[in-house]
Amino acid sequence: MTNIEQYKVNVEPFYQSQGDEIAIYEAAYASRLPVMIKGPTGCGKSRFIEYMAWKLGKPLITVACNEDMTASDLIGRYLLDANGTRWLDGPLTVAARIGAICYLDEVVEARQDTTVVIHPLTDHRRTLPLDKKGEMVSAHENFQLVISYNPGYQSLMKDLKQSTKQRFVGMDFDYPSAQLEASIISKEAGCDMELASKLVKIGITARNLKGHGLEEGISTRLMVYAADLIKQGIAAPSACRTALVRPITDDIDIRATLDHAVDQVFG
Amino acid sequence: MTNIEQYKVNVEPFYQSQGDEIAIYEAAYASRLPVMIKGPTGCGKSRFIEYMAWKLGKPLITVACNEDMTASDLIGRYLLDANGTRWLDGPLTVAARIGAICYLDEVVEARQDTTVVIHPLTDHRRTLPLDKKGEMVSAHENFQLVISYNPGYQSLMKDLKQSTKQRFVGMDFDYPSAQLEASIISKEAGCDMELASKLVKIGITARNLKGHGLEEGISTRLMVYAADLIKQGIAAPSACRTALVRPITDDIDIRATLDHAVDQVFG
Amino acid sequence: MTNIEQYKVNVEPFYQSQGDEIAIYEAAYASRLPVMIKGPTGCGKSRFIEYMAWKLGKPLITVACNEDMTASDLIGRYLLDANGTRWLDGPLTVAARIGAICYLDEVVEARQDTTVVIHPLTDHRRTLPLDKKGEMVSAHENFQLVISYNPGYQSLMKDLKQSTKQRFVGMDFDYPSAQLEASIISKEAGCDMELASKLVKIGITARNLKGHGLEEGISTRLMVYAADLIKQGIAAPSACRTALVRPITDDIDIRATLDHAVDQVFG
Amino acid sequence: MTNIEQYKVNVEPFYQSQGDEIAIYEAAYASRLPVMIKGPTGCGKSRFIEYMAWKLGKPLITVACNEDMTASDLIGRYLLDANGTRWLDGPLTVAARIGAICYLDEVVEARQDTTVVIHPLTDHRRTLPLDKKGEMVSAHENFQLVISYNPGYQSLMKDLKQSTKQRFVGMDFDYPSAQLEASIISKEAGCDMELASKLVKIGITARNLKGHGLEEGISTRLMVYAADLIKQGIAAPSACRTALVRPITDDIDIRATLDHAVDQVFG
Amino acid sequence: MTNIEQYKVNVEPFYQSQGDEIAIYEAAYASRLPVMIKGPTGCGKSRFIEYMAWKLGKPLITVACNEDMTASDLIGRYLLDANGTRWLDGPLTVAARIGAICYLDEVVEARQDTTVVIHPLTDHRRTLPLDKKGEMVSAHENFQLVISYNPGYQSLMKDLKQSTKQRFVGMDFDYPSAQLEASIISKEAGCDMELASKLVKIGITARNLKGHGLEEGISTRLMVYAADLIKQGIAAPSACRTALVRPITDDIDIRATLDHAVDQVFG
Amino acid sequence: MTNIEQYKVNVEPFYQSQGDEIAIYEAAYASRLPVMIKGPTGCGKSRFIEYMAWKLGKPLITVACNEDMTASDLIGRYLLDANGTRWLDGPLTVAARIGAICYLDEVVEARQDTTVVIHPLTDHRRTLPLDKKGEMVSAHENFQLVISYNPGYQSLMKDLKQSTKQRFVGMDFDYPSAQLEASIISKEAGCDMELASKLVKIGITARNLKGHGLEEGISTRLMVYAADLIKQGIAAPSACRTALVRPITDDIDIRATLDHAVDQVFG
Repeated sequence: MTNIEQYKVNVEPFYQSQGDEIAIYEAAYASRLPVMIKGPTGCGKSRFIEYMAWKLGKPLITVACNEDMTASDLIGRYLLDANGTRWLDGPLTVAARIGAICYLDEVVEARQDTTVVIHPLTDHRRTLPLDKKGEMVSAHENFQLVISYNPGYQSLMKDLKQSTKQRFVGMDFDYPSAQLEASIISKEAGCDMELASKLVKIGITARNLKGHGLEEGISTRLMVYAADLIKQGIAAPSACRTALVRPITDDIDIRATLDHAVDQVFG
Repeated sequence: MTNIEQYKVNVEPFYQSQGDEIAIYEAAYASRLPVMIKGPTGCGKSRFIEYMAWKLGKPLITVACNEDMTASDLIGRYLLDANGTRWLDGPLTVAARIGAICYLDEVVEARQDTTVVIHPLTDHRRTLPLDKKGEMVSAHENFQLVISYNPGYQSLMKDLKQSTKQRFVGMDFDYPSAQLEASIISKEAGCDMELASKLVKIGITARNLKGHGLEEGISTRLMVYAADLIKQGIAAPSACRTALVRPITDDIDIRATLDHAVDQVFG
Repeated sequence: MTNIEQYKVNVEPFYQSQGDEIAIYEAAYASRLPVMIKGPTGCGKSRFIEYMAWKLGKPLITVACNEDMTASDLIGRYLLDANGTRWLDGPLTVAARIGAICYLDEVVEARQDTTVVIHPLTDHRRTLPLDKKGEMVSAHENFQLVISYNPGYQSLMKDLKQSTKQRFVGMDFDYPSAQLEASIISKEAGCDMELASKLVKIGITARNLKGHGLEEGISTRLMVYAADLIKQGIAAPSACRTALVRPITDDIDIRATLDHAVDQVFG
Repeated sequence: MTNIEQYKVNVEPFYQSQGDEIAIYEAAYASRLPVMIKGPTGCGKSRFIEYMAWKLGKPLITVACNEDMTASDLIGRYLLDANGTRWLDGPLTVAARIGAICYLDEVVEARQDTTVVIHPLTDHRRTLPLDKKGEMVSAHENFQLVISYNPGYQSLMKDLKQSTKQRFVGMDFDYPSAQLEASIISKEAGCDMELASKLVKIGITARNLKGHGLEEGISTRLMVYAADLIKQGIAAPSACRTALVRPITDDIDIRATLDHAVDQVFG
Repeated sequence: MTNIEQYKVNVEPFYQSQGDEIAIYEAAYASRLPVMIKGPTGCGKSRFIEYMAWKLGKPLITVACNEDMTASDLIGRYLLDANGTRWLDGPLTVAARIGAICYLDEVVEARQDTTVVIHPLTDHRRTLPLDKKGEMVSAHENFQLVISYNPGYQSLMKDLKQSTKQRFVGMDFDYPSAQLEASIISKEAGCDMELASKLVKIGITARNLKGHGLEEGISTRLMVYAADLIKQGIAAPSACRTALVRPITDDIDIRATLDHAVDQVFG
Repeated sequence: MTNIEQYKVNVEPFYQSQGDEIAIYEAAYASRLPVMIKGPTGCGKSRFIEYMAWKLGKPLITVACNEDMTASDLIGRYLLDANGTRWLDGPLTVAARIGAICYLDEVVEARQDTTVVIHPLTDHRRTLPLDKKGEMVSAHENFQLVISYNPGYQSLMKDLKQSTKQRFVGMDFDYPSAQLEASIISKEAGCDMELASKLVKIGITARNLKGHGLEEGISTRLMVYAADLIKQGIAAPSACRTALVRPITDDIDIRATLDHAVDQVFG
């Protein structure tokens, strides 16, 4: 038996609403509509799903998709055993059986056979055929499928098939407002709002450079890292360079612009 | 023994005829001619086959094809067992044995070895050689093969071989008429015809954009999703953006056009 | 032991000679020369081989080649068993052992290792080395190899190696004459010659479009399909569109031309 | 134990010398120098090696190389057995152990790991390391390696590595003289010299077209096929078209030229 | 049980600080922030991590990443055993369990599935799902992830995904100062400072050529090699050519420039 | 237990020094520095390593690298056995355990995972992690790694990573002087110096054509082959064509130039 408890979100994740996204998600869950979350890296998509799983009291199974992932990685496979082969459910199958929310993070990264297997789970059938096992799994009534999707860096080679896209309702996410983001950082890193607001200022500078030399802006997570380093005694400019500038770019000009922003904020 | 009952369509699927397609399909089935269903994503191809399986009282086995699918995924394979290897029939073999309608959805997505294995099942031989098992399966007299095909987004790299195409009769499908589609939505989502008709109006706007920035129009399924969200208490414009606009495009101009259509219909 | 009977062609296939091809094939078989059959899709190549197998009273093993086929698919492989591994002859090995005609349909589709394994079977050696089994199979005296080849759609990437081509005598096939084809359709579908002749007229229109928008003409099989549908009560124009036009093209202009031909013939 | 007898060439192959190639080969064999035979398809390379194996009284193991061949196909592999794994020598290992001439036909077709494994067998070491078995096989004193190579159709992508080439002495082969070729055909097909000479005349026409629309000329084997068909009662022009023209080209102009040559010779 | 002792760094690695990197690393470790070390080949990145592991008294597990590495190489896999399959933890899993610093050297070389598996270990979850085993490993409180990254030769095809980059704080490394590098060489090779300083002079010449014909400069390691050879009695110019020039370039002009520098320093 | 004796070089290989390469190698070995040998095909690199292994009295394990080689081919793998799986050390692991010189011939041909596994063996760690076995092999004190590298035909696609290159001292090799090469040939083939010198003269002509139509010059080995053939009674010009010209080029002009050189020398 699968241990459901390990998938429960027991502690309320810190999440502050930015609009009507909670109500919309609750409505989608009530009808068990599959949901597609769109937005840039690090804007809080995963956190939101975690929060909703906690709020709805449903187990959550997260899978980080990648281009080497196969359908078997989602569905399951046979393993060799002392008594021959034994079937091992994959995370999607586990989710369908126990009635979890299954969150496929960055699903476009996966190969097509991975995205096609979700089709019968996302229409009126709500089934998952385990062809290799000869079993047809009917999804638990609480099961829901959620995928994330970053429109910012879809490569030309990778996109969801139309017949996949048309199985989801879509929700847009973006970075939180400066005020909200500062309060998130303050809470997560345990720092005061003044420091948090300064870090957000640097982050906004970086996000404005997106498409002008930066592929992506600075995520909230990196700002929390900066606050962590400062709390450990590292000087603020040094902590900001380490956590906010060095990881995201090697371009000398962009680095100079960001370093300058750091100096202005903490000068 | 395979359990035939699990493949039976027990409840009449909601389907309203749009022309002589039911008569033609019945004639094709009477001669057990292989059938190729052509049409855009979400226009009701799968639903039609389900309806015909119910009407003819035959079991239906559906396989969503994908580019990583192999012939073994259709035909079957050996599994290791406590007593050595055991053969497991694939869905096509099961269908041939029990006399099911086998529906290969989006067959062009599959690799060529997948499409070639169906050849001997689609001519006077009506056999399926299981080379790896050394068995020649004669198809059950009720067996019929159906494939679907979306001419709208055939890539240049993927097409059926001529020697495959020339084994099927072809049937064209398209989106239902506005009147019919509204009644489908009304029935599926349990909403009134007025709301359903408004949703269809938005859908028609989107379908007119196909080829002018949209890869595909809005499927009936997404309209049902919108009605679901409205039923759960989400305001109509918000529900439409979530279910009809966000999933299908990230293009700012197209989104504006569609959002405008939403506002006009529900303004 | 392989059951030879399952490979026998017990009922005389309907075949009407179009020239001296029967005499030439008989001469080639008498010397056990390997034969290469060339011609467009659906012109009756497979049917001819079946007929010759019946006439010569020899078993026939047909393999539909594809680009994912490996040499092991032809020769055989080891399978795991309760007592370790067990060798399973592939179709080519079976044919060599029992003295069958082995027909490799569309052999250029296969990978090179598939085409190279036939070399020692096609010269004075007439042997098939099963390297993985350490066995050298001497072909039965009745064994003959036949391959088919469609010059019409050889891709630039795929062709037989010269050292393979030069192991075969070559026979050209083409669509039968209108008169002959009508009598074939009449016999196969059980319809009168008038209907059959009309169908052939449409087919000839399509074949004239080959290279002018159509990749291939209409095969005899599709004409039989059309007659089948008419026999089941479908109106002739509708049956022709379903069986002769829809499967082979999505081009609007070509469809119009063919639909027009249908209307003229049945108008 | 490997049965050496199955690799012996017991009947003298028909071979007529065209120069000093027999003496050179004997000298190379006396020093066990590795030999590379170069020449067009069907000029008699394989036949020559077979003849030399017969003349020297040594077993011969021939391997037709292809692009899907791996080093394991030459060296050997483990097979699963009732008592665990069992090693099975590949053809090259067998040849090295029993002292056979190992003939790798069209070696450039193989993957690089296949060509590299022969290195230690072709220098002063004369060893073959079976890394997977942990065994170092010292070649039998009679062992010799021979490879063939068709300079006519080396693709740009495929060539032997220089470090491989420089391990062989090279011998050029070409089609035999008209007189010699006619006597070969007469002997092989059991026909008179007049017919044989006529067939050679057609062949020479074809060989002159090489590089002017024909990829390769007509091999001696195809001429023997033509004589075989004539012996079975097929009229000479028809037999020539079947055996000499149809297999090697689909080009209408080249076919016309060759058909014209047939008519002139047999007119 | 894994033997932790084998991963301990028992002897203090020779490392001399070049700035505040030790304090920053200690702060990052205190918050268990994932660290990305950037810098050219051979500038001492690996040595620094080894030093920090020694200083912090934590076990260190190093994995040299490469383009053929799979997620299973990091996480673990099932092995066949006398009693069926047995799970074997990979190095990342071992590190997570025992609380080691896991150092993934040149992580961009690895395939995406390798980089994606580290995601849940690098956010608040600090877990590693072993999907194939059905186990969720919670990282030991001492576990930390470190990756290295050479911005100098990122190919266009290979880069970390943004969603991976934004999980790390970044630290820049460069070659040590001349004075410091000489003392390192002197200590490592057991030579006097004069020789060490001369070797560094040559090294600086080479590093100035980077981007002007040299892909990378000369690493400290190669200078130690040169001192080693001189200690073994090889004349200094010859030792320098062998250890500093020959390994890094075949370009005649660059070699002349470097050889000239050697002669000037040791002339 | 591995049988060390089979890797010992018992007979002194014929090798004549061309400079200080023996002293440099001995110094490198004394410090166990990894060595990279550079030079054209057939200039005696392998022979030199064999000679040094004999001189130092150390076992030698040679691996001819190729593009299909994997890390497992070097390190080892699990084999299935009657009692489950059994680990089999690969050649690199054997060398590390018994203290052999491990010579990886043409290492750039191998895949990257093959070259990366040697990293921990080539720095102060001198270890080889067998991740799949969970064992960390400490190299025997006599172990040394040597790789060869042909700068002449590095493809653009294949080169060693800088982080690999910077782990080796480099030694250049070239063809021996005419005088020395003649004495080598004379000794190896057992012919007089006059014949040997004539063969070298032809070789020098060929080496001057390198880059002007010839990819590589003629190796010493081929000259020994020519002398062998002459000793077996083949006329010198014919022997030279067979051993020196035919193997290395099919270009008509280059062949004419070389044949002319042969005639001049033996005219």
